[in-house]
Amino acid sequence: MSARHEPIRLGMVGGGAGAMIGNVHRIAARLDGQFALLAGALSSDAARAQASADAAGIARSYADYAEMAVAEAARPDGIEAVAICTPNHLHFPVARAFLEAGIHVICDKPMTATLEEAHALARIAEASDALFVLTHNYSAYPMIREARALIARGDLGAIRLVQVEYAQDWLTEVSGSKQAEWRGDPARAGAGGAIGDIGTHAFQLARFVTGMRPSHLAADLSSFVPGRRLDDNAHVLLRYEGGAKGMLWASQVAPGGENGLRLRVFGAKGGIEWHHEAPETLWFTPFGEPARKLRRGGPGTLTGDAGSRVPAGHPEGYLEGFANLYAEAARAIRARQAGRPLPEDLCLPGIADGIEGLSFIDACIRSNAAGTAFVEVMA
Amino acid sequence: MSARHEPIRLGMVGGGAGAMIGNVHRIAARLDGQFALLAGALSSDAARAQASADAAGIARSYADYAEMAVAEAARPDGIEAVAICTPNHLHFPVARAFLEAGIHVICDKPMTATLEEAHALARIAEASDALFVLTHNYSAYPMIREARALIARGDLGAIRLVQVEYAQDWLTEVSGSKQAEWRGDPARAGAGGAIGDIGTHAFQLARFVTGMRPSHLAADLSSFVPGRRLDDNAHVLLRYEGGAKGMLWASQVAPGGENGLRLRVFGAKGGIEWHHEAPETLWFTPFGEPARKLRRGGPGTLTGDAGSRVPAGHPEGYLEGFANLYAEAARAIRARQAGRPLPEDLCLPGIADGIEGLSFIDACIRSNAAGTAFVEVMA
Amino acid sequence: MSARHEPIRLGMVGGGAGAMIGNVHRIAARLDGQFALLAGALSSDAARAQASADAAGIARSYADYAEMAVAEAARPDGIEAVAICTPNHLHFPVARAFLEAGIHVICDKPMTATLEEAHALARIAEASDALFVLTHNYSAYPMIREARALIARGDLGAIRLVQVEYAQDWLTEVSGSKQAEWRGDPARAGAGGAIGDIGTHAFQLARFVTGMRPSHLAADLSSFVPGRRLDDNAHVLLRYEGGAKGMLWASQVAPGGENGLRLRVFGAKGGIEWHHEAPETLWFTPFGEPARKLRRGGPGTLTGDAGSRVPAGHPEGYLEGFANLYAEAARAIRARQAGRPLPEDLCLPGIADGIEGLSFIDACIRSNAAGTAFVEVMA
Amino acid sequence: MSARHEPIRLGMVGGGAGAMIGNVHRIAARLDGQFALLAGALSSDAARAQASADAAGIARSYADYAEMAVAEAARPDGIEAVAICTPNHLHFPVARAFLEAGIHVICDKPMTATLEEAHALARIAEASDALFVLTHNYSAYPMIREARALIARGDLGAIRLVQVEYAQDWLTEVSGSKQAEWRGDPARAGAGGAIGDIGTHAFQLARFVTGMRPSHLAADLSSFVPGRRLDDNAHVLLRYEGGAKGMLWASQVAPGGENGLRLRVFGAKGGIEWHHEAPETLWFTPFGEPARKLRRGGPGTLTGDAGSRVPAGHPEGYLEGFANLYAEAARAIRARQAGRPLPEDLCLPGIADGIEGLSFIDACIRSNAAGTAFVEVMA
Repeated sequence: MSARHEPIRLGMVGGGAGAMIGNVHRIAARLDGQFALLAGALSSDAARAQASADAAGIARSYADYAEMAVAEAARPDGIEAVAICTPNHLHFPVARAFLEAGIHVICDKPMTATLEEAHALARIAEASDALFVLTHNYSAYPMIREARALIARGDLGAIRLVQVEYAQDWLTEVSGSKQAEWRGDPARAGAGGAIGDIGTHAFQLARFVTGMRPSHLAADLSSFVPGRRLDDNAHVLLRYEGGAKGMLWASQVAPGGENGLRLRVFGAKGGIEWHHEAPETLWFTPFGEPARKLRRGGPGTLTGDAGSRVPAGHPEGYLEGFANLYAEAARAIRARQAGRPLPEDLCLPGIADGIEGLSFIDACIRSNAAGTAFVEVMA
Repeated sequence: MSARHEPIRLGMVGGGAGAMIGNVHRIAARLDGQFALLAGALSSDAARAQASADAAGIARSYADYAEMAVAEAARPDGIEAVAICTPNHLHFPVARAFLEAGIHVICDKPMTATLEEAHALARIAEASDALFVLTHNYSAYPMIREARALIARGDLGAIRLVQVEYAQDWLTEVSGSKQAEWRGDPARAGAGGAIGDIGTHAFQLARFVTGMRPSHLAADLSSFVPGRRLDDNAHVLLRYEGGAKGMLWASQVAPGGENGLRLRVFGAKGGIEWHHEAPETLWFTPFGEPARKLRRGGPGTLTGDAGSRVPAGHPEGYLEGFANLYAEAARAIRARQAGRPLPEDLCLPGIADGIEGLSFIDACIRSNAAGTAFVEVMA
Repeated sequence: MSARHEPIRLGMVGGGAGAMIGNVHRIAARLDGQFALLAGALSSDAARAQASADAAGIARSYADYAEMAVAEAARPDGIEAVAICTPNHLHFPVARAFLEAGIHVICDKPMTATLEEAHALARIAEASDALFVLTHNYSAYPMIREARALIARGDLGAIRLVQVEYAQDWLTEVSGSKQAEWRGDPARAGAGGAIGDIGTHAFQLARFVTGMRPSHLAADLSSFVPGRRLDDNAHVLLRYEGGAKGMLWASQVAPGGENGLRLRVFGAKGGIEWHHEAPETLWFTPFGEPARKLRRGGPGTLTGDAGSRVPAGHPEGYLEGFANLYAEAARAIRARQAGRPLPEDLCLPGIADGIEGLSFIDACIRSNAAGTAFVEVMA
Repeated sequence: MSARHEPIRLGMVGGGAGAMIGNVHRIAARLDGQFALLAGALSSDAARAQASADAAGIARSYADYAEMAVAEAARPDGIEAVAICTPNHLHFPVARAFLEAGIHVICDKPMTATLEEAHALARIAEASDALFVLTHNYSAYPMIREARALIARGDLGAIRLVQVEYAQDWLTEVSGSKQAEWRGDPARAGAGGAIGDIGTHAFQLARFVTGMRPSHLAADLSSFVPGRRLDDNAHVLLRYEGGAKGMLWASQVAPGGENGLRLRVFGAKGGIEWHHEAPETLWFTPFGEPARKLRRGGPGTLTGDAGSRVPAGHPEGYLEGFANLYAEAARAIRARQAGRPLPEDLCLPGIADGIEGLSFIDACIRSNAAGTAFVEVMA
């Protein structure tokens, strides 16, 4: 790691007690010592917000994110960045409040609840000096970046096939958990169920690794559990400009699936395969040669130990991948604060990725409504 | 194995020098000592037929399958059954000739080149006393039968999802092999490329294990290699009566794919997973319990050591699975010869499976022609 | 496979009903069509011998192996080779009878019950024109031969370490099976329990692959199950001339172990790893490069499709490996019968391997008796 | 996590620029927000110490650990605990200095350079109010603790066999790295090479999981690379009171080995297996049942989500395991500071484990010197 700086002052909206992702953001922010979490609006209930802030060691607690944005922007020691960990429908208003206050935003995905909001947020971000980072954390795994580097260098030849999936089982039955609750409510989750919650991750992963965006897709969405109002399974066919094709499967009703993100890409000269269950390994098979087991930080990789904290064989995982996003966000923020251009090697998801994610959800829903006909994915 | 019998007298059509599958049939027939291969029409060229017969230790060689059917039927020591290992377009006329001669048929898949031929063959078989066996060998793996038993007993609950794939890479580039040559020629392979060659295997495997037949499908077929006249990749969405859905992927252009048949089935109460690369293992995950690694002949299986020749941990594979079909065919033939009803526990693919395979190919081609619209799979 | 011959006429001693290994020999002999099983002494009880012979389709049944050797040698159509599948203590007298009758012997391991017998058999074999083949079947797996070829070519550099193990669990508790019964009786199994039954396989596998024979070893033998008279677990340290070292573990009381043979070899320039559970894969890791997954018949192998019957990805297994020994034995027998020298590329285990196996058992028992001191392994 | 406290004030000795383990300690201390790193003696060279402290964001830098201990103990805001990350020979004097200053110690392993020092440190710790924690981090993996719980509950029955190994390859050739340099120098590493560096980890892991300590061992130590003064490979046989036996292999010259810690334990009723490469999985095989794949935080575990930060399927790894030790150390320190007894469910390695580790090294060296004879492992 390069020369040491004072930690960036960080705030958080959402992520109170019982939320999984709030704690993930806190650990990721802390892991490399680049951020200090100083303020939060962890709940819209003042007492709960205060209790959650106390438990998380956060000095300044707010019950209202808008008030927080204004107050922090006014303090000389106010936060420089904010992490947004709320249910989906709040991403847009919260991000707007902080961007307009000039505070950098690190926001969970999907970026907004609708494609219209996504475009609106793009305009707001455009007008702001503050940065917007979208935490598509899976694309920050070192071996995912290795896959991307291999493809970018042409080692797979022209890409023909993309097979990506994300299989979970936690919604196999009716669930009463807090996380299941808001995700099942269209008013808070947006129009996508599994397709929004995990399908967007699968979509972004394939997009990130291949550099290709599908022009058309056909989606067959299902709700297998009675009473469920949003999809819990999505079968999607993808078509790319230039002829490549793909399949995307996202499911929350696949017993045995934990967090089963898996990507395979095949080109005219070779193929790659990556599984979330073993995130430190990337299989690379040049056509006509034995499969090679590439390992994070190991021999024969293009990216070497970039993004590694410990040598190959000391497993890193989800939190380290998430922390890679925070480390990159810190680099970007420091560059912006110093008036320097952003580092060229940054690969931080942002507004464009957010729009694409919403375009994907939008296309899936339109296709499904049209009997799984192929529809255009809006740019 | 039960009481010993004289080997069944077997003939073979096709499967001459250079053909992979002919040798597979010969080994499978020999493995359990239930068949003696005595006659063959291994090529339509008399000299090549004779040379191939000599190399395979076959006593009586013919250059013409029709002549062989007649001659063998007339001999007191003539063949009782014939294995058909020709390119696809000959399956129908050859099967017809032997069925009409009262000789049992063990035929490679797809059963015929067209759906019309399949129905015609059904009528011919109906009128014959001879049996018709279709060598969908993958469904004879013991752990595939274990999966079927688990689902039949209800251990997975109502089935919701079927994810099946068959990925190879041998047609990633233009191939000059004999096997690639006829498979790429619509006149000999039929209308399906990958979809007929391996897609039908994937389809039958899912059908066999779940007992469910999709009513509709949507297929996106591709030919990635320039000049190729048949599909080398198929992306298919499946819909079942009752609401279950599926994805089927068959590819011959996936670098790193060897013979990558893989099946996953998920129901309301559990899931199973099977990979051809490790055919002796079946993963079974009851919802809310740890995954169980079931092994051929191992503890906790419903089927026990049925279909096993050696104890768990001594790997059996492709040839043993294929031989299971021959062993079952022998049981069926002996029952028929003795005037007994066929054993109730037989699970031999036959005419109905053949029709379904051609219906599947037919539906894929119609759907693809219709822009990947969902079409009905003809019963 | 080369030009076709008449099948070699084969007999069998031992391997009656209920014996696992007799059926394995029969399938292996049949698989490639190189042998016809015509005579047998499958039991010393005449009625049981006849019943077993009938069940196996064997024409001529004997109750006495010595009588069988004489009678068959006298027939013009008598057997040319015999497979010995008896308990260990009979290997020596049976092999002697047939070698002295000029009949080729294919014998299960360990070759004899004692080292003295092994040397005696060596002298008998030396004096006979008949061949002696020892069925160390694991060394006939194609990927084991690939490992041997890699090491012979120097791709691992000077060998430093050999880690080999064979873990089973079938004797975890007292077992009443026929196979457990004679294996637990020193009078029939010889002085070694697990060390003789499976330890010799592990020993031979490492010996075959590396080409190195340990000069000294130290063994710690245990009998964990009360009442057991022979070892059910062996921990062995190996030392080689030139400084390489090894560990060998053989156990029949390791719950979860099926037939868990596993070999790793490490040299100054690279390492290899092979597991019986996935016998078609060999891991090869040149130092400082990614691990390569070599596959039977697959790209990047030195041995190509030697020993393969079906292409990569169609799993072959235990029976095919065993059959490879029979196929090689057929080649050797045909060469001997034709008065030609044995093929140079044969790698058939024989007398020398048998002696080494008994030397290994002998050294283990001496070391264990001496408090696990290092002792010399007799040449 | 329970109610929030002020971070514990932490210091660090050793762990300057270029040291791997120093950064690991810093991340582990930071990950759960329980520690604030405020002072350090990261090098004995004042300028380097200051530069390293600056890079790590440490406010107070010392060039002398003894001075640091005194100065910090005297400050009202001085450190409450210190992490020791120096080469092995300094563990003893540094730990002594801080324990005598009443400052809690979190020390890397092996605890000291000699067994004598270990006993001396035990007396010093006994006389101090400060806690001593030894960072045997691998025993803090949740699935290792699950294994321990299974065994403690009796699910494996009486333990018979322990097979443990730790294979690396980074010393396959002469290495010029800083880490290789001091580890190869007996004056700084102590008498053990691989045996001290990683063998102690393997030993402690087996000890922790089974609760059993071997009474005797026999060790064969090697130095394969010319010029190396300490062992780079160790083959060890273990014997336990009550008859259980074990094998331990530690190597730094096994090409392909990354950080290959692997543990298998077998009892009369079942077995477990764990690999560092997939640390979130524990295989549990009750005898006569299918193997179960237990997952961190997953169904069917005894320990549930204890030690988990994210749900099953979001991989945690090395840093999270290490952080578990720091989290437990924080619990222990806070209890001690509050005058409460230490929590009963703590499983923090400490002085006793350190002594056992040195006893293990001592016994290995004595056995090796005695020609690999079994020697007693001193209590």
